[in-house]
Amino acid sequence: MNAPVFLFALHNHQPVGNFPSVFERAFRECYRPLLEELFRHPSVKFTIHFSGPLFEYMGEKEKSSWNLVREMAGRRQAELLGGGFYEPILAVIPEEDRQGQILMMSRYLEKHFGQKPRGLWLTERVWEPQLAETLNRAGIEYTLLDEEHFLQAGFQGLHAAAITEEGGRPLRLFPIDKKLRYMIPFQDLNTIRSYFWEVRERGGTAILGDDGEKFGLWPGTHNLVYGEKWLRNFLDFLDEPAIRTMTYSEYLDEFPAAVKVYLPPASYEEMTEWVLSAEDQETYKNLKAGKTEKERRFLRGGYFREFFLKYTESDHFHKRMLGVSQEVGRSGDETARRELYKAQSNDACWHGIFGGLYLPHLRQAGYFHLLRAEKRLPSPPGWIAADYDLDGRPEFIIRGRIFQVFVKPSEGGAITEIDHLESPRNLTDVLTRRREAYHAAKPAEKREGKSIHDLAKEPPREAADMFVYDTHPRRSFLDRFFSPGKAQADNLGRTPEEIGDFLLAEYSAKTEGDILRLSSPGTVNTEGKAAALRIQKTLHLDDHRLSAEIEIENLESRNIRLVYGSEWNFSARPEEVEPTEGAVLLFNRRLLFSVSPSAEIDISPIRTLSQSEKGFDIIRQGTGLIPVWEFSLAAGKKITFHVKLEERHEP
Amino acid sequence: MNAPVFLFALHNHQPVGNFPSVFERAFRECYRPLLEELFRHPSVKFTIHFSGPLFEYMGEKEKSSWNLVREMAGRRQAELLGGGFYEPILAVIPEEDRQGQILMMSRYLEKHFGQKPRGLWLTERVWEPQLAETLNRAGIEYTLLDEEHFLQAGFQGLHAAAITEEGGRPLRLFPIDKKLRYMIPFQDLNTIRSYFWEVRERGGTAILGDDGEKFGLWPGTHNLVYGEKWLRNFLDFLDEPAIRTMTYSEYLDEFPAAVKVYLPPASYEEMTEWVLSAEDQETYKNLKAGKTEKERRFLRGGYFREFFLKYTESDHFHKRMLGVSQEVGRSGDETARRELYKAQSNDACWHGIFGGLYLPHLRQAGYFHLLRAEKRLPSPPGWIAADYDLDGRPEFIIRGRIFQVFVKPSEGGAITEIDHLESPRNLTDVLTRRREAYHAAKPAEKREGKSIHDLAKEPPREAADMFVYDTHPRRSFLDRFFSPGKAQADNLGRTPEEIGDFLLAEYSAKTEGDILRLSSPGTVNTEGKAAALRIQKTLHLDDHRLSAEIEIENLESRNIRLVYGSEWNFSARPEEVEPTEGAVLLFNRRLLFSVSPSAEIDISPIRTLSQSEKGFDIIRQGTGLIPVWEFSLAAGKKITFHVKLEERHEP
Repeated sequence: MNAPVFLFALHNHQPVGNFPSVFERAFRECYRPLLEELFRHPSVKFTIHFSGPLFEYMGEKEKSSWNLVREMAGRRQAELLGGGFYEPILAVIPEEDRQGQILMMSRYLEKHFGQKPRGLWLTERVWEPQLAETLNRAGIEYTLLDEEHFLQAGFQGLHAAAITEEGGRPLRLFPIDKKLRYMIPFQDLNTIRSYFWEVRERGGTAILGDDGEKFGLWPGTHNLVYGEKWLRNFLDFLDEPAIRTMTYSEYLDEFPAAVKVYLPPASYEEMTEWVLSAEDQETYKNLKAGKTEKERRFLRGGYFREFFLKYTESDHFHKRMLGVSQEVGRSGDETARRELYKAQSNDACWHGIFGGLYLPHLRQAGYFHLLRAEKRLPSPPGWIAADYDLDGRPEFIIRGRIFQVFVKPSEGGAITEIDHLESPRNLTDVLTRRREAYHAAKPAEKREGKSIHDLAKEPPREAADMFVYDTHPRRSFLDRFFSPGKAQADNLGRTPEEIGDFLLAEYSAKTEGDILRLSSPGTVNTEGKAAALRIQKTLHLDDHRLSAEIEIENLESRNIRLVYGSEWNFSARPEEVEPTEGAVLLFNRRLLFSVSPSAEIDISPIRTLSQSEKGFDIIRQGTGLIPVWEFSLAAGKKITFHVKLEERHEP
Repeated sequence: MNAPVFLFALHNHQPVGNFPSVFERAFRECYRPLLEELFRHPSVKFTIHFSGPLFEYMGEKEKSSWNLVREMAGRRQAELLGGGFYEPILAVIPEEDRQGQILMMSRYLEKHFGQKPRGLWLTERVWEPQLAETLNRAGIEYTLLDEEHFLQAGFQGLHAAAITEEGGRPLRLFPIDKKLRYMIPFQDLNTIRSYFWEVRERGGTAILGDDGEKFGLWPGTHNLVYGEKWLRNFLDFLDEPAIRTMTYSEYLDEFPAAVKVYLPPASYEEMTEWVLSAEDQETYKNLKAGKTEKERRFLRGGYFREFFLKYTESDHFHKRMLGVSQEVGRSGDETARRELYKAQSNDACWHGIFGGLYLPHLRQAGYFHLLRAEKRLPSPPGWIAADYDLDGRPEFIIRGRIFQVFVKPSEGGAITEIDHLESPRNLTDVLTRRREAYHAAKPAEKREGKSIHDLAKEPPREAADMFVYDTHPRRSFLDRFFSPGKAQADNLGRTPEEIGDFLLAEYSAKTEGDILRLSSPGTVNTEGKAAALRIQKTLHLDDHRLSAEIEIENLESRNIRLVYGSEWNFSARPEEVEPTEGAVLLFNRRLLFSVSPSAEIDISPIRTLSQSEKGFDIIRQGTGLIPVWEFSLAAGKKITFHVKLEERHEP
C-alpha cells in the first residue's frame, strides 16, 4: 500500500482594524515561528493562506516572514491560496465585489510571490451553491470546505476531492477532516499516524485546512507548539518517507475528483449553530443528540445570512455596505472601492466563539472604511428618502458638513445612525444586549488535548450582573414613557419599564424643506388608564448641529401626568462621557448633547458579556442617555422638548 | 375587523413535448371552463400564470381561452404572472438563460396582454438565495414560495409577504398556505370560510398559489369542480363583500413586507423528499414523525440539484444542456437559443408524484430541441475530448453526418449517447430501473376530500414482476462477462450475473486519426479462479455507420473459457425492434444493429414502474441488446468482435 497522503493547508488572518499590538504579537508568537519551522523542513509540502491585512502588515513590518513565504513559494514547498483580499464572506457581498476582491488577491500573489493561486480559502467556509460559478469565473479551480457541508448532502466520510458546478462552471471541493482539525496540534503523533493510516486504508487522503493561529496564538498553544516542540516533531514525522505530503494543486493534477456533489449552503458545524438564537441552539443540539450518521444529514442548523436577522447591528452594517457598494460601482472611484473592500472584512458582522461583532474596535473599523468610501461619493443636499436597509419601507438620510444621519420612521421614528464625518465614525454604533446561548454555560470539564471548543470557561464572577437584556434595539431619538418615580435606569443598566407603545410604532414621515417631520399616535398606560397621545417630532441638520424637537399632544379630554424620556445611545465609552449642567459632553468633550427645557439626563453604561477563544469578555459598548421630563398636560394641549447634538469649537 | 383578504394565484403548465391530445383535453376539461367561470365573477380578483407552451398552444388553437385571459387582464380582474418562458427550474440553468427566459415571457405578456408582469411563478418553487438577484435584475418584484421554505428559516405561520435580498437587490416573497393548498378545491366552503377568518384573526392574509390543473384535470376533479359546481360556489362565496380578493400586486402596493427573511434552498415539502433515495426518504420521514414545529425547522430533506445525483439520466441531460447553452451563448444564434430554452423545460429532469423523468416522450422532446439547437452550432470534425458531463474527467465526442456519439472512458469505456441527427433523436435515451420509495407503497386509506397526495394507489397486479432493478446505468458498448450457460436475461429483464469487473472500470482513451481507442485491464472470475484480461476496443464513425470493435486478450498463461457480451441499450420500444439473421432492425427498420462473428443477440424489453398523479404507470422505456459470444482463449491470445450500427437505405 502506498504511503498515506497528507494535504496540509493553513489559513492565517487578522481582521481589518485589529490593534497593531495584536498583529505584532501574532507574528512574534505564531506566524513567524510557524514559517521558520516549515522552512526548516523543505520537503514537507504545504498550502497556505494569508489574508490581505496580514500581507499588508508583513510587507511593511515583517519582512522576515514575507521573505520566508516568498522563498518557500519559490521553491514550490508552499502553495499559496487566494481569497477575497480583505477576507469578506463571499456569499453576502455583491458579485462584482466578489470578483474584485478575489482578483485583487490573485494579482497580489502573482506580483509579489510569483504564484497565481489555483485554490481559494473560503472565508469561514461559508458556502452557497452559486459560489462555484463565482470562483470559476475568477480563475479559481478549488476550495476547501468542511465535512459538515458534505454530510448535509449525504456524503459521509469522504476523504478525497469532489467536484460541483453552477451554470456549467466546475469547481473542485476538498472536505476538511474534522477529526484532524481537533487532533492538530493537540494529540500525540502516534494517534495522528494511526489516523493517517486509517484514512489510507479506506482509500482516502488526509485533508486538513485550519487556522494557523492554532500554532501559537490560541491560548496555551505557544508553549505546546514551540516550547514542547509539538510542531517540530510533527514536521519531522511528515518528513519521513512513510508519509507523503503534497500541495493541493499537486494532488489535483494527480487525482481526479472522486465524486460529483451538490452542497447546500453551510459552514463548519459550529457556525451553523452560532447563527441560531440561544433558544434554537438548544432545540437543535437536543435534536442532534444521539442521532445516527444517516439521520444527521437531515439535521441542519442555520446559514450565515441569518446572522443579519439575529443581530440588527450586523444587518444595519451589511445593508449600509451594500448601498455603498452600489454607489461605488456607479462611481468607478478606485480609492472608494478599496475602502469598501476593507469594510467588507467579515469579522465584525457575526459572532460565535470567533467573530468580532462584540468588539467595538472592529465594528468601528468597518464604519471607518465604509464612511471613507462614502465620503468620496456624491450626495444630494437635504433629506433623501431611500430604503437603505432593504426592508421595503423608506428611510430618510441626510448628509451635512459634520454629521450624517439615518432615520427609520417604521420603527419608532428612530435614528439608526449618526456619523461624524471627519473622524469618520458612527457615533451610535452600540450593541444591544442579548441573551447568548453560552450565558447558560456550565463549567467545562478539564480534558487532555484541549481544542478551542473545550476552552469555554465559567463566566467570570463580575459577570453576575451582566445577565440583563435589552427589550429593544439601542437606537436613538426613541420616545419613552415611564411611571412617575421609576424613570432611572437601575444599577444593571436596565432602562425603566416602558408604559407607552411608541417605541417600535410606525411613524409617518415627510420632509418640509430641510426638516424631517415624524408623527405617530399612540397610547400610554398611566394612572391605571390608557391615555391617547400624538407625538410629532422633527429633525433638522445644519453645519454644526443636529436639532431634534419632540412635541407631545394630549388627545384625551382630561389632564394627564406624564414622565417622558428621549432615549439616545452613543458608542462613547464611560470615560468619554462627562455630565455637565443640563448637558453631557461626549467623545472627549468633542460633542455636546444638550436639552431644553432643562432635564435630568440619565446616563447608563452599556456593557456586554460575550465569549471568545480566550473565555468570557466584558466589553464596554457605549453609553445610553435619557433626558427625562415629568409634567402634566391639560386636555388637548401640547408640550415641546428639544435635544441637540453639536460639535464644540474648543475641544 | 376588516374582511379577510384572499390572494388567489393559479399556475397552469403543460410540458414542452406533451401530446397534443393532452393539451386539447386540458383546455376542454380544465383551463377553458376555469377561465369561463372566473370571467363570470368580474369582481373576484385573481393572479394567473400560464407557461409558454400553453400560451403558444392557446394563441394557435384556443382563441376563446386566449381572449378570456386578455379580457380579464384588460379589466384588471386578472394579474398575469411572469416566469421562465418554457418553465425551466431557474436555479439549475445558467444566469444568462434565466434572464433570457424571464424577459421572453415578460415581453410576451406585455405585447399580447398589455401587462408587464411584476410577479413570477417560480417553477416548482425551487428556491435558491441567489434568485433574489436574478429576479430583481429581470424586473420582477415578487414570487410565491411555500410554507416549507419559511419554516426552514424559522418562520412559522407567516401569512403575509416577506422581503429578502441578494447583493443588495430586494425581492418580496409570498408564503403559499399549505392548508389552503390541501383544502381547495376539496373542502366545503364553511371549512374554508372558517379558515379565512382564523388567518384574519391572527392578523394575516390567506395566500394561495396552486396548480390550475386541480380545477378539472386531476383525477376526479372535473366532476367535483364543474359537475358539482364546487368552483362556482367558491367564486360566489369570494364575491361576497365579507371576503376581499386582491391581486398580488394590489396587495404589494397596499401592505409593506411584514418581515425580512433569508431562506435556504428549498421547494415544497414533498419535493424535498422526492429528491432523496428511497432509503433516505424513509429515514427522513421517520425522523420527522412526531416532531414539534420548533424542531421541524432543523429537519430538511434534499434540494433540487440532488436529482442530478439520484438519476444519471437527468444529470446527463442537464450537463448536455449546459454545454449547448455555452455554445449558444458564444454563437448568438437566436433560433438555437429558442430551441435551447425549449429543452430547458423542467419536466423531464425530475420525478416525484409529478415530474416527467419516467416519460419517454418528454425526455425525447428535451433531446429533440437540444439537438435542434446543437445542429445549428459548429462542430470540428473527428473526435473531440471534452468534459461534457463536468465530472472533471475527459469524455470523447464525435459528430458525423448521421450520428453523434458520446463516450465516457472513465466508466466502462461506455457510450452514453448516440444521436440520430436527422430526427433528431437520442437513440440511447433509456431509463435505468431503480427502486423508488413508493414501490413499497401500502394501499392508501380512503378519505374524504382527497388531495393528490391521498390518491396513491396500490401498484397494479401486473407490476408484480416490475420490482427488479438494474445493477448499473443502462449505457451502451458495455463489456459484460457471464458464466457459461447463464448468458440470457431472465423473463423479468434482468441481465445475467456479471462475473467481470470491466463494467465501471476506468478505460484509458486516445484517438488515432478518426478512431477512438479505449483500453483497460481487468479480471473475470470464471471456473473458480480469477483470470486477468485486457480489453482494447475502438470506435469509428463514418457517414452511415458506427463501427465498434472489441479485442479481448488473455493475460494468463493458461487457456480460459469465456462468455462475453457487449451490452447496448436503445430507446426503441419492443414494437420498433425486429430480430433478423444475426442482427436486429431498430426504430421501424430504419437502423440495423449487426455483429460479427455471428452471435445470438439477447433482446430484453426495459420497462419501469413509476408513479404519477393518476397512480402507477408501467412504461416501456426501450430495449436492451446483448450479443453473446462463448469461446476459449489460449494463453496470451486475442479475439476480436465487431458491432455495427448503421442507417438502412431502404427503410
